[in-house]
Amino acid sequence: MPRVMFQPAGLTVEVEPETSLLDAAREANVPLRNDCGGQGVCGRCLVEVRRGSVNRLKSRHTPPEGREMACRCLVEEGDVEVFVPAESREIDIEVTLREVEPPAEDFPPPGALVEDVELSLPPPSLDDNLADAERLRRALSKWREGEYPLAIAGLRGLPKVLREADWEPVVTLGEEPWGRRVLDVRAADGRPRCVLAVDVGTTAIKARLLGPGGRHVASCYNSQMMFGPDVISRIIHCQRADQKGCAELQQAVVQDIERLLEALLEESPWRRDDVWGAVFSGNTTMIHLLLGLYPGWIRREPYVGCAYLLPSVNPREVGLRINPAGRVFCLPSVSSFVGADITAGVLATGLADMEEPSVLIDLGTNGEIVVGCREFLVCCSASAGPAFEGGASASGTRAREGAIDTVWAENGVRWRTIGDAPPLGICGTGYIDLMATLLREGIMDKTGKFVPGAAGVRQLEDETTDYLLVPAERSATGRDIELTQADVQNLVRAKGAIYAAGSLLLRNLGMEWGDLARIMLAGGFGEHLDKDNAVAIGLLPDVPRDRIEFVGNTSLEGAVCAASSAAKYRRARQTAKSMTYFELSTHPEFMDQFVSACFLPHTDAEKFPSVTGDVEVRNSAET
Amino acid sequence: MPRVMFQPAGLTVEVEPETSLLDAAREANVPLRNDCGGQGVCGRCLVEVRRGSVNRLKSRHTPPEGREMACRCLVEEGDVEVFVPAESREIDIEVTLREVEPPAEDFPPPGALVEDVELSLPPPSLDDNLADAERLRRALSKWREGEYPLAIAGLRGLPKVLREADWEPVVTLGEEPWGRRVLDVRAADGRPRCVLAVDVGTTAIKARLLGPGGRHVASCYNSQMMFGPDVISRIIHCQRADQKGCAELQQAVVQDIERLLEALLEESPWRRDDVWGAVFSGNTTMIHLLLGLYPGWIRREPYVGCAYLLPSVNPREVGLRINPAGRVFCLPSVSSFVGADITAGVLATGLADMEEPSVLIDLGTNGEIVVGCREFLVCCSASAGPAFEGGASASGTRAREGAIDTVWAENGVRWRTIGDAPPLGICGTGYIDLMATLLREGIMDKTGKFVPGAAGVRQLEDETTDYLLVPAERSATGRDIELTQADVQNLVRAKGAIYAAGSLLLRNLGMEWGDLARIMLAGGFGEHLDKDNAVAIGLLPDVPRDRIEFVGNTSLEGAVCAASSAAKYRRARQTAKSMTYFELSTHPEFMDQFVSACFLPHTDAEKFPSVTGDVEVRNSAET
Repeated sequence: MPRVMFQPAGLTVEVEPETSLLDAAREANVPLRNDCGGQGVCGRCLVEVRRGSVNRLKSRHTPPEGREMACRCLVEEGDVEVFVPAESREIDIEVTLREVEPPAEDFPPPGALVEDVELSLPPPSLDDNLADAERLRRALSKWREGEYPLAIAGLRGLPKVLREADWEPVVTLGEEPWGRRVLDVRAADGRPRCVLAVDVGTTAIKARLLGPGGRHVASCYNSQMMFGPDVISRIIHCQRADQKGCAELQQAVVQDIERLLEALLEESPWRRDDVWGAVFSGNTTMIHLLLGLYPGWIRREPYVGCAYLLPSVNPREVGLRINPAGRVFCLPSVSSFVGADITAGVLATGLADMEEPSVLIDLGTNGEIVVGCREFLVCCSASAGPAFEGGASASGTRAREGAIDTVWAENGVRWRTIGDAPPLGICGTGYIDLMATLLREGIMDKTGKFVPGAAGVRQLEDETTDYLLVPAERSATGRDIELTQADVQNLVRAKGAIYAAGSLLLRNLGMEWGDLARIMLAGGFGEHLDKDNAVAIGLLPDVPRDRIEFVGNTSLEGAVCAASSAAKYRRARQTAKSMTYFELSTHPEFMDQFVSACFLPHTDAEKFPSVTGDVEVRNSAET
Repeated sequence: MPRVMFQPAGLTVEVEPETSLLDAAREANVPLRNDCGGQGVCGRCLVEVRRGSVNRLKSRHTPPEGREMACRCLVEEGDVEVFVPAESREIDIEVTLREVEPPAEDFPPPGALVEDVELSLPPPSLDDNLADAERLRRALSKWREGEYPLAIAGLRGLPKVLREADWEPVVTLGEEPWGRRVLDVRAADGRPRCVLAVDVGTTAIKARLLGPGGRHVASCYNSQMMFGPDVISRIIHCQRADQKGCAELQQAVVQDIERLLEALLEESPWRRDDVWGAVFSGNTTMIHLLLGLYPGWIRREPYVGCAYLLPSVNPREVGLRINPAGRVFCLPSVSSFVGADITAGVLATGLADMEEPSVLIDLGTNGEIVVGCREFLVCCSASAGPAFEGGASASGTRAREGAIDTVWAENGVRWRTIGDAPPLGICGTGYIDLMATLLREGIMDKTGKFVPGAAGVRQLEDETTDYLLVPAERSATGRDIELTQADVQNLVRAKGAIYAAGSLLLRNLGMEWGDLARIMLAGGFGEHLDKDNAVAIGLLPDVPRDRIEFVGNTSLEGAVCAASSAAKYRRARQTAKSMTYFELSTHPEFMDQFVSACFLPHTDAEKFPSVTGDVEVRNSAET
């Protein structure tokens, strides 16, 4: 079979003739950009063929001189050497670590999802000759009421362990829907234990090890991106390749999690066997793919998943190499498009305990909205698309070093990147700032059209216009960083969908935005949000700014909450069952609301008095 | 390595030099008799070395001319050929089938331990878009309240199966302590399902397949006998070889069960995958060994097992090749010496539902006694020893074809064998008859001594006496079938222990034998019991004969009951928890009671008026 070598990584793979270079890259685990799932549409998978020959399929894109679209090049009989240029690489496929506040010294706390209990059993005697397992259960029931079944594997070692522990064992318990299961019994060994919390995002995965001294959040891209940028393209991959497709996607994400775990362990006092549990959050499709559940019916009307309330699972069932007697837990989903990331967000923000109605808006590839308080919770989802995550835009990127995340006007349009690194592209908060700035500066009008002749606006050959933010010679990729008319359309549609969905949900509850005590925006699309700019483009409603809050990645935070407390985990399951899902796609008013919201900030100017009256409020003290 | 070939089976095995021929036979799966566990004591493992040479260890037995004790012969460097004569073979290692009444045509009935439910789900719609798993659970909860968790493996196939079944699936449910588990979901296929019920005896294993048309009980010897005849010698094997020993014994019994299953399947309409459950009964040690649980502490004061209330188990955990999604259940034990066979007996006889106090006496290697009714249940165990199972007696055998099971006086002492086959030895009921007959005929006195000069009594060289029942030339083994003075001692001790234990248990309840409505004797030591003879030797109390009942193998019958009804299985677990275990070994009066009962029928003649007054009641209509 011909071999394909990928440079500069130096990874080689053997493939069948007729395999595309994109598929070969996936096979070789080379992180090659590709936003259309290999359909020849996005033009992101550009490579240089440096040695050997390939069969080029027709394409409507003409790649730049010396470059090829990897998805359009098929391997022939001979070996090929391929160079992947910087802009085609998912550059931080490597794990990055960020330091955070460690959990309490006595983690896991009493009542955690996976918990250690120290017991002192009376040794057996002729007057008290219960079997070892029943003796243990009796002590556990005295400690806290319950049944405490032991699996057969645990029973096999029990007589030896109890005697080695001199009848004073440490017992590790794990939560089940019907009570608590005994995961492990051992002599006290003084070893610290820990639990892994993971947010499986469509784009990025973040993980923490929870235990004394667990000081880091590790993150990396979800390498499922090699199969497509969003949940729909990944579901399509599963449908095309049936069980094999599901298995490939499961393997991809589990390998990522394993790499995160490895990096976290290196910075910690723990070994793999000290990790006794893992708690996962993520959207419904991500959780399906993690567990190897078929997600195919999620994208077809009436949009049903395989399961939303999930059993705890043996780590081997997902291929996760933590302690094999430990357990894997997933936060529950509410529906196909309101996932565990949302129940995690409700948990992390405490929405279900609030006295006054508030809203949580999670702005990801799919936007989800939950309105409620301790009396009720209602949710909906809106197809925002990946615009704010940088997915479908000409110069879009994720919130990483080099991403333009802040834009403002000061003798022209200015920008700043995360880490002050050379600019790679624009991330979500950068787009919000850019759009608001261009509006204020009169470079873009309220319909989202660029004003011909304004500074930075370029007239293109195909009679469209775009806005040049950073010219190629100043960018890290050697390509212009720009905002196209199509980008603006996507961004306007995304913010319009969110706003319209929220408005319609509220109206159906007999409420308005102004009735909400807090408006919480969650997501991983930036590190700081300019509230005025978010209002200025009509993404968020025009309410007093102190009611608006950017709460960051609540999905990971919710997993951390659940890991720390079985009661919170149970609460999340209860929340998922009781939350009312409001189906927008069938609602007759949605299209009207959406069309009205596809304007900057809105067709109904009265809804945004602070913006349309005085666009300069951004310099107020709250910013 | 030298090879050992065993004839007439023609089985060859390679072993290390210094391996005993007995160990080589075990390795080769040659069913060689051996009652002392290879200690050189029983003299049962006689073989002929026909080719090659062996190293003979010293022994206090002198084997007959041309024979060797296999446990005393070590293989040297060269190959050996060994002939196993008929009397050294466990002759019916082969599975035997007996026809019985099949269960009802609609087995498994509603509420069985493993049960099929036909559901009709509303297909998902935009107004009702629950996930597949929650849709299934909703329908199950409507059918019967409960949680119905699905394992991850079942979830993986669920979307496909539900749609193939057109939303009308058949669901197989299995009982768990916390409710019911979904074992399988499929489109209706009209295939019959069945459940295996097994009694794992120390000596013999019996099994039935329960389903429409399951007409057979299959039985075979427990090939753990190669490691020793009773639970104690097998526990010692586990202790000697630690986990390896447990695994060897588990493997031996599982292979036997697999052979029984194979034989039953051949006579049935089912395949292995149609067997969705297996329910096991047996004494505490047998259940430990079946599940691979360490039994070592059962034989050391204070005699505690690893577990008595057992979880249901995946068939792969025990190596049983039924449907891998099925479940294995074990009836619960009460204590180390009151096992699942006894809770099975309580279930099968309905003792726990009786209005008036009765007793169940299970006469096995270990005798167990339960006294009670629906108000209370108290149990104890008495080390009867294997005398009634033919284990330790000179001419003892199990209740099999060729076993002398009936003895009477009619112009001399007469006997009959099971199946009217040539006599191999004497089984339990044969010994009861023989002892009673010799007593009546004045051949043996009330202390168990043979009367010198009486017909059949022989004076031996070592100044002891014995009784010759069948001379060598008329027996199937070519050896005398005899009753030795040591045999009588063992039998008297066994019956004395049972009677003393029962009497003491009753006295502690403020009762006497005469207060009991029914006296039920259970066990596999014969097919028919002569009640008068059992009373005549003092095994059973002297009460009106219509209160005495021989109930046969209640262990298997209890497993059948549990398989047919989850409620009965739960009831057995409740019974095991609530049954009071009365520890005899520490009771100060036991020794007195035992010594008084080591007389024929008893030192206190007033307790046996019908025997001491008129020994000829045996010809009454009740016999």
